[in-house]
Amino acid sequence: MYDMIIIGAGIGGLSAAIYARRFKLNVLVISKDIGGTTLEAHKVENYPSHTSISGIELMKKTEEHAKSQGVEIKVGTVEKTEKTKEGFEVDTGEARYKGKVLILAMGSERRKLDVDGEKDFLGKGVSYCATCDAPFFKDKVVGVVGGSDAAAQSALLVAEYAKKVYIIYRKDKMRAEPIHLENLENNDKIEFVYNANVIRVFGETFMKGVELDTGNKLELDGMFIEVGSVPSTALAIELGVDVDDTNYIKTDKEQKTNIPGVFSIGDVTDTPMRQAIVAAGQGAVASQSAYRFLKNG
Amino acid sequence: MYDMIIIGAGIGGLSAAIYARRFKLNVLVISKDIGGTTLEAHKVENYPSHTSISGIELMKKTEEHAKSQGVEIKVGTVEKTEKTKEGFEVDTGEARYKGKVLILAMGSERRKLDVDGEKDFLGKGVSYCATCDAPFFKDKVVGVVGGSDAAAQSALLVAEYAKKVYIIYRKDKMRAEPIHLENLENNDKIEFVYNANVIRVFGETFMKGVELDTGNKLELDGMFIEVGSVPSTALAIELGVDVDDTNYIKTDKEQKTNIPGVFSIGDVTDTPMRQAIVAAGQGAVASQSAYRFLKNG
Repeated sequence: MYDMIIIGAGIGGLSAAIYARRFKLNVLVISKDIGGTTLEAHKVENYPSHTSISGIELMKKTEEHAKSQGVEIKVGTVEKTEKTKEGFEVDTGEARYKGKVLILAMGSERRKLDVDGEKDFLGKGVSYCATCDAPFFKDKVVGVVGGSDAAAQSALLVAEYAKKVYIIYRKDKMRAEPIHLENLENNDKIEFVYNANVIRVFGETFMKGVELDTGNKLELDGMFIEVGSVPSTALAIELGVDVDDTNYIKTDKEQKTNIPGVFSIGDVTDTPMRQAIVAAGQGAVASQSAYRFLKNG
Repeated sequence: MYDMIIIGAGIGGLSAAIYARRFKLNVLVISKDIGGTTLEAHKVENYPSHTSISGIELMKKTEEHAKSQGVEIKVGTVEKTEKTKEGFEVDTGEARYKGKVLILAMGSERRKLDVDGEKDFLGKGVSYCATCDAPFFKDKVVGVVGGSDAAAQSALLVAEYAKKVYIIYRKDKMRAEPIHLENLENNDKIEFVYNANVIRVFGETFMKGVELDTGNKLELDGMFIEVGSVPSTALAIELGVDVDDTNYIKTDKEQKTNIPGVFSIGDVTDTPMRQAIVAAGQGAVASQSAYRFLKNG
């Protein structure tokens, strides 16, 4: 019987685990990988105290940090979680683990275009996060794919750096907030490519452009794919955890969910910002909340 | 006219500034020092990705990080902030600065005992933060000074590591939650020293003990001073920012205060946890909220 089981070993889950050890809790982390979404970041320049570090290196340091505190990590896919009399049971298919409290830190998956070259040029021009990567495209020609308000905001941010931004969208008008649409329309750097879908990304070491289903090609130094993300919340919903209308887990300021003893952090939640440093902070808060829950019964 | 003025250059303020630069905002940080409360930490072992680092080193790295992003920092004491037609004015006595939005990140000051030796042995046995430093006192004899629920919780955490914990309190009973008091009373490692005040800390390189006003001396390897903290909110209150009944600034999940264009983060707020990593995460969130406020008018 563990005091705490954390599902997910991204920066949020590992932060919660580090704090759990500081609180002398017996903690197990179960995750399909160690490092989560941050692993995909070519360079991280916004995790305060690291001027510039690769996502892989940042997560290697964080994994070492967690292990130095005695954190136990098992790689596996959680298939089911259940409420029991003493707490919770977590089933990976291969084994079942019992814990008094749960921290849900499964993150989210960026929706992909599923086109040739998309995966090959990830971190070599292709990115799913403008907040993370826009500054790497100073004076470059960049595409932003998508028509949502998030895509609009990303395009505006990218245009602060890039010399030219093409917004590629399958319909004939973006679904953005009027103020964002207005700002896009008034920005000389921005050009709309409507009624078009990317069907291929091409390049050599780095991407060089995309092919569209209109028959045209666009030369691009980079491309932000902003077609939404999907939280990994199937498990949580099955357990009865409240989610918002886009399936992200609802949490309060102390990272509590609606179920006593279940806490949640990072990209899988209704967090105001999906960033490594934010998830790390929330991990600390969730661990303290869980510790208090355990001590106060 | 700056886009953003941040008051306070602790980890929260610097994180907000790093993110402001990523959002291409013109940002000024004004602070009485660079580094804030974290500078006092002898060793930091709970900022994920740094297994073990001194507070000074962590803040030096963060300052370098901020400066590499083009953050401008002025050392000075803010005497007054005012709402103007275009935004806010910040007066240091020596100069006045204008900004469109404000981020308040002034932190809080731990209440001191104001006794001989307290300052000399800070980081050499004396600490104001059990969550930060309890693990450094494994198998040691430690004092906890104070009678609040926070003091009780600190004593319980310290007792997870130390072999003996004395709770030193000036009255004859702690004002802790019943469950915490019960846990203290049932813990063999904990001994109450009631009706006593510390009047001196003594030692050589590290502290060795304290003298009490009862005439007794206690040999201690360490001492946690838990007599409360005071947020540096005079400025904020004058500006009309809502605070809670202990003067901490009220913020929502997006780090907004009640005044449009004024955001707040870290120890000066009603945050669930006063820790470096939490303030850093909140800095990122506040910066994004401020950026959206500026762009959406």
